[in-house]
Amino acid sequence: MSKHVRIITPHVTPAPKKLLEVEDLIGLADLEFTQVNIETGPISIESEFDDVLCAPGVLARALQAEEDGAHAIIIDCFGDPALHAAREIVSIPVLGPGETTMRVATLLGHRFSVVTVLDSVVSILENHAKIYGVHDQLASIRVINTPVRSISHDINEVATKLTEQAVLAIRQDRADVIILGCTGFLGVSEVIESNLKKEGLPVPVINPLRTSVMAAVMMLQLGLSHSPLSYQPPSRKPITGYTMPSLAKKSVNRDRL
Amino acid sequence: MSKHVRIITPHVTPAPKKLLEVEDLIGLADLEFTQVNIETGPISIESEFDDVLCAPGVLARALQAEEDGAHAIIIDCFGDPALHAAREIVSIPVLGPGETTMRVATLLGHRFSVVTVLDSVVSILENHAKIYGVHDQLASIRVINTPVRSISHDINEVATKLTEQAVLAIRQDRADVIILGCTGFLGVSEVIESNLKKEGLPVPVINPLRTSVMAAVMMLQLGLSHSPLSYQPPSRKPITGYTMPSLAKKSVNRDRL
Amino acid sequence: MSKHVRIITPHVTPAPKKLLEVEDLIGLADLEFTQVNIETGPISIESEFDDVLCAPGVLARALQAEEDGAHAIIIDCFGDPALHAAREIVSIPVLGPGETTMRVATLLGHRFSVVTVLDSVVSILENHAKIYGVHDQLASIRVINTPVRSISHDINEVATKLTEQAVLAIRQDRADVIILGCTGFLGVSEVIESNLKKEGLPVPVINPLRTSVMAAVMMLQLGLSHSPLSYQPPSRKPITGYTMPSLAKKSVNRDRL
Amino acid sequence: MSKHVRIITPHVTPAPKKLLEVEDLIGLADLEFTQVNIETGPISIESEFDDVLCAPGVLARALQAEEDGAHAIIIDCFGDPALHAAREIVSIPVLGPGETTMRVATLLGHRFSVVTVLDSVVSILENHAKIYGVHDQLASIRVINTPVRSISHDINEVATKLTEQAVLAIRQDRADVIILGCTGFLGVSEVIESNLKKEGLPVPVINPLRTSVMAAVMMLQLGLSHSPLSYQPPSRKPITGYTMPSLAKKSVNRDRL
Amino acid sequence: MSKHVRIITPHVTPAPKKLLEVEDLIGLADLEFTQVNIETGPISIESEFDDVLCAPGVLARALQAEEDGAHAIIIDCFGDPALHAAREIVSIPVLGPGETTMRVATLLGHRFSVVTVLDSVVSILENHAKIYGVHDQLASIRVINTPVRSISHDINEVATKLTEQAVLAIRQDRADVIILGCTGFLGVSEVIESNLKKEGLPVPVINPLRTSVMAAVMMLQLGLSHSPLSYQPPSRKPITGYTMPSLAKKSVNRDRL
Amino acid sequence: MSKHVRIITPHVTPAPKKLLEVEDLIGLADLEFTQVNIETGPISIESEFDDVLCAPGVLARALQAEEDGAHAIIIDCFGDPALHAAREIVSIPVLGPGETTMRVATLLGHRFSVVTVLDSVVSILENHAKIYGVHDQLASIRVINTPVRSISHDINEVATKLTEQAVLAIRQDRADVIILGCTGFLGVSEVIESNLKKEGLPVPVINPLRTSVMAAVMMLQLGLSHSPLSYQPPSRKPITGYTMPSLAKKSVNRDRL
Repeated sequence: MSKHVRIITPHVTPAPKKLLEVEDLIGLADLEFTQVNIETGPISIESEFDDVLCAPGVLARALQAEEDGAHAIIIDCFGDPALHAAREIVSIPVLGPGETTMRVATLLGHRFSVVTVLDSVVSILENHAKIYGVHDQLASIRVINTPVRSISHDINEVATKLTEQAVLAIRQDRADVIILGCTGFLGVSEVIESNLKKEGLPVPVINPLRTSVMAAVMMLQLGLSHSPLSYQPPSRKPITGYTMPSLAKKSVNRDRL
Repeated sequence: MSKHVRIITPHVTPAPKKLLEVEDLIGLADLEFTQVNIETGPISIESEFDDVLCAPGVLARALQAEEDGAHAIIIDCFGDPALHAAREIVSIPVLGPGETTMRVATLLGHRFSVVTVLDSVVSILENHAKIYGVHDQLASIRVINTPVRSISHDINEVATKLTEQAVLAIRQDRADVIILGCTGFLGVSEVIESNLKKEGLPVPVINPLRTSVMAAVMMLQLGLSHSPLSYQPPSRKPITGYTMPSLAKKSVNRDRL
Repeated sequence: MSKHVRIITPHVTPAPKKLLEVEDLIGLADLEFTQVNIETGPISIESEFDDVLCAPGVLARALQAEEDGAHAIIIDCFGDPALHAAREIVSIPVLGPGETTMRVATLLGHRFSVVTVLDSVVSILENHAKIYGVHDQLASIRVINTPVRSISHDINEVATKLTEQAVLAIRQDRADVIILGCTGFLGVSEVIESNLKKEGLPVPVINPLRTSVMAAVMMLQLGLSHSPLSYQPPSRKPITGYTMPSLAKKSVNRDRL
Repeated sequence: MSKHVRIITPHVTPAPKKLLEVEDLIGLADLEFTQVNIETGPISIESEFDDVLCAPGVLARALQAEEDGAHAIIIDCFGDPALHAAREIVSIPVLGPGETTMRVATLLGHRFSVVTVLDSVVSILENHAKIYGVHDQLASIRVINTPVRSISHDINEVATKLTEQAVLAIRQDRADVIILGCTGFLGVSEVIESNLKKEGLPVPVINPLRTSVMAAVMMLQLGLSHSPLSYQPPSRKPITGYTMPSLAKKSVNRDRL
Repeated sequence: MSKHVRIITPHVTPAPKKLLEVEDLIGLADLEFTQVNIETGPISIESEFDDVLCAPGVLARALQAEEDGAHAIIIDCFGDPALHAAREIVSIPVLGPGETTMRVATLLGHRFSVVTVLDSVVSILENHAKIYGVHDQLASIRVINTPVRSISHDINEVATKLTEQAVLAIRQDRADVIILGCTGFLGVSEVIESNLKKEGLPVPVINPLRTSVMAAVMMLQLGLSHSPLSYQPPSRKPITGYTMPSLAKKSVNRDRL
Repeated sequence: MSKHVRIITPHVTPAPKKLLEVEDLIGLADLEFTQVNIETGPISIESEFDDVLCAPGVLARALQAEEDGAHAIIIDCFGDPALHAAREIVSIPVLGPGETTMRVATLLGHRFSVVTVLDSVVSILENHAKIYGVHDQLASIRVINTPVRSISHDINEVATKLTEQAVLAIRQDRADVIILGCTGFLGVSEVIESNLKKEGLPVPVINPLRTSVMAAVMMLQLGLSHSPLSYQPPSRKPITGYTMPSLAKKSVNRDRL
């Protein structure tokens, strides 16, 4: 049976290269990928402010994805905007690259570091690590001081900077695993892994978008989705100013019996 | 010097009684209070979904408040929607009743419980407690199974249910301090405190809106506001679909020197 | 490309039904499964004593699996015997159902419980949860007081007992996700999930063997394996009394550069 | 209604400048301040030994303060000597600058550092942070190697040293908020805040005495005091060698009903 | 070589039976025991207030013990009054029964409970467990609601009540080890251990005074005492109202080289 | 009464000098020491792989020790191989130097460091610290990059390297107490303590084998052994390939009454 994974890119900048990052996974298990951007919001996500402005658009796209018959949703941003809210309103699995890669990293080694874009996202990601329960295994978050929109200008330079920070994370912060902390770092995970190997540091380098897709496949193949007790369906009530597709998810009550 | 505190109620339901809850504090230090609702969003906040939909409206109101010359902002909901994002974009203190009361509770006793509306908010508040770093002092979150919009229908019954849960929190969960976990619980904190006293349990009962206002006064009087290193001003970049007042806050860089 | 997953059952009792539990996953990505038992050790794993006695056999089988060209190894016991040691000596991914399911559970909900066989394994699993860093999300470990060797005698009764404990875990311990805590619980995960749904508790029930296999597939598809900095290859030195296949893994040094 | 805040300086050295530090707060809410020293104890508090010797004097002053009709008590030392014991014996709020500023710091940013006098107090304050539950948010405690009694000799040099340590706390230890860790650092908080701003680090600098006074005002205005379940009134029994004013506080019992 | 252990009972009530509790240990390693009470303070320790009032007397006795040539000091109260301060001023080991037994308990099993006198000491002991770093292994603190001065009136009834609470600690709170949480529980540890065995619960029951003495012997035999970096000697300075034997301990500086 | 302590050295290399390390303790309390090696396993323990291969031999020796009438067992390796399993199968106390010294260290100061042999054991010891519940007090684990079998070649050089790492642990990592992290570091603890004193750092240096022996003496003198609820006796069942002395320990059930 074919499985359809919808990638929701939570900003308004078109992202044609996203599907290239995962296209080799299509052969596996009759996977089908589609990608959409949101319609309202910022051009990139680098702050809590950006997170707030993109989140309603993500929810609209999540409801639409379930209506379209998608089997799983990937929110294509390491900041996992609207992740928990989306899980409340759809029944299919919703994966965020931030959460997914941090959990996969703990499966690969004792301590991990995230190498990412800007100092402004460090506190946000640390708070996420606290909620996800992986903060004690987070060796460090290191940044290359490059805004998201500049990544594609010189991807080679970005790969070099990411390697530099990864080396410091391993040697100074005692990381055993490296996570690329932005889904805009396209096509560089293998380069960085190879660079680190040349430095005598053959550690796993985790690609956020590909890893999220494979975690979604794992969940689909196992018939698993998020617990409705953790992500309880919202009650229906009037909303002003948003035209959301209707909420269909049934509510659950731990205390019913 | 007069101090102007702006209360932003993050839903679209008019809330005329909010100012009554704090009007006796006006005499103190030439305080002035104003209250506004948001223009787009749900009628109450009881899920991550509601949180996402109210948050852009809160940010618009926060920017407006600073432009209006307000000296501090209270986000009038225990779920603290858009709290961190608002701190990124304005320089004046922004207080959330959830965070504020949990911190004040730790000043009053070793363990606190929150008594609130619905089971659907429990995980949200627990995650907040983890980010705020007070989870180890949180004895429990207990609910009365009453949606926000029904609170005002029979406030006496609500007070009775809150007292019942508070007694259980103290006796079974070993709470030493009680927090009322919804800013819609208007006018009942003293009743509940008095009820508990009659039960032989004279513990502090924390009123979320009043406590947030007084914490704002404390910060204003001390000339303190949030650290721009924790809440870094977002960079300016195009946003589609929102007309935000312009972002004026200057960026800060820990590594500058 | 075909992927070969070797399942190592770490006791001496033949386990012909193991492959049935995962055979429907074969279609996915040209997977191939093989299963072996160990040659020396106990008939089941229910204590640290059993763990010690099965562990050398697991390591011999792990080395052999890599020599046989297997692409990944599953240690077929929830107690994850010899997991870290096996990762030290082979380069292919080694998955333990205990660790894997606890991490997947945290991806599905805020708190999970394990329902398992005997009180004697509770401390062992709690210590594992501490090492894996998921102890704060562990709601409880509950037991059905049935030894491993009795599970297959009346699998329906086992399913009933597991459902009972799962209901208590959800209602009393506030679990949002249930893990079946023994890989001998064959063919019952769907029954239990269905039983819980009938109770009004539609939570995910995690099957340990299937989940471990799919996590291995995820790692293979992503080209990921364990960090050699976390699991450093042992130096070669004389060993008395064991005939281990030779250790081929190259050592790594964080401090080399 | 006028509110009377009694500042108890827990050493025998007269401290005439203390009231100057807070006198501008008098206008607020009809505040009245009085300050007393203790009669027996050391000349400054820089060790657990000093803490023990000043504590009985603090308790005598606390009982006297309540008899005098004071509405709140500030223990004027960052080491919070006799804080919990004082809360046991009086009903009015008792604030310690160590606890109060650490909690207020967490309201202002994600991580804070304390800059203080001597290495001998570091362990003491770290242990306090563990009891107060804020240890995970404590970036560091840094010292200027100046004993308390030397602070007033050259307050400008002290301010310079404090600024130096604050810069290191921000840059090396990743603090977002700075606490001045001695109530003897009089009149320098604004200078240090201004120094840091010139360095491009506009972070909040928390003045311990002023902040404690305003936290007391907040509690008085809200009608809150410490939970008698956390700080249970001692039973009356013979005491040899101390002439304490009589204990009037009524005992409380969580288990009564 | 004979070793002299000084037991300091931190209240003014004569305690002639204390030495009986440990006299059978005298044969070991030429041990010599002496016991003294303090001269000023309460008749028992059941609150932070009592702790403050007994602490100066404990310090005077600690200095005297070292002058007398004692080789180790036991502070004979489970609340460990003045423990850290005493370590600052003498070079010989100072043991507190609270800290010592909690650490020994963690050597005997995964989780321990304390059974003690009154609800008023629970928070105090929990805070101690946080400072000592054993709070995560503390299953519960349970009380028999008997004040210290009433213990000796009917020691059999006390033993019965302690057994009852111990059974609940094991069955309900999942304790694996029991600590008697008051050094006034003389001569009952074996009775309680035997009672528990009859209930089918053969768990270790830790006697606080005997265990502290043996931990002191261990430290003396190993030539170990407390780190002067953790417990730094106070500087000499004027003290009003106390006549302390002179402080002889030399100061230490981590930063010297 | 004479007490017999059996030291089990968990590798196959003869270790004649072990008894010299503790012989001066014999006078104390009629102690008798015997030492045995295991018969099958590696020549030293420096990995999880080594741990697995030595563990069955340790269990055989533990059962034999109890049959021989020994009163306590020391597992003579800082990695504590088979520690929990051995406690399951014998009733006498079983001490591991890793666990014992980490607990004793916390009795001596606020933070400790371990100085040990190779980088390959660091993760293993950190995981042990997590299980033992002392990870928050562990300042660092530092290594001298010397394999176990090379220690005796130049013990003076080893002492020099250990001193160097201890100094760094104290100055850079803020350790207050030093643990020698290998029981092969024979005869050097006093040298290192003396070296540190000359550097102005008079901190306790903990000798793992001697400390474990004295902790065993403490437990014997107090009549204490491990809780059978934490270390439950394994059920009897067929084992292939091992000839274990018979398991005599009776099982225990928390739920019996």
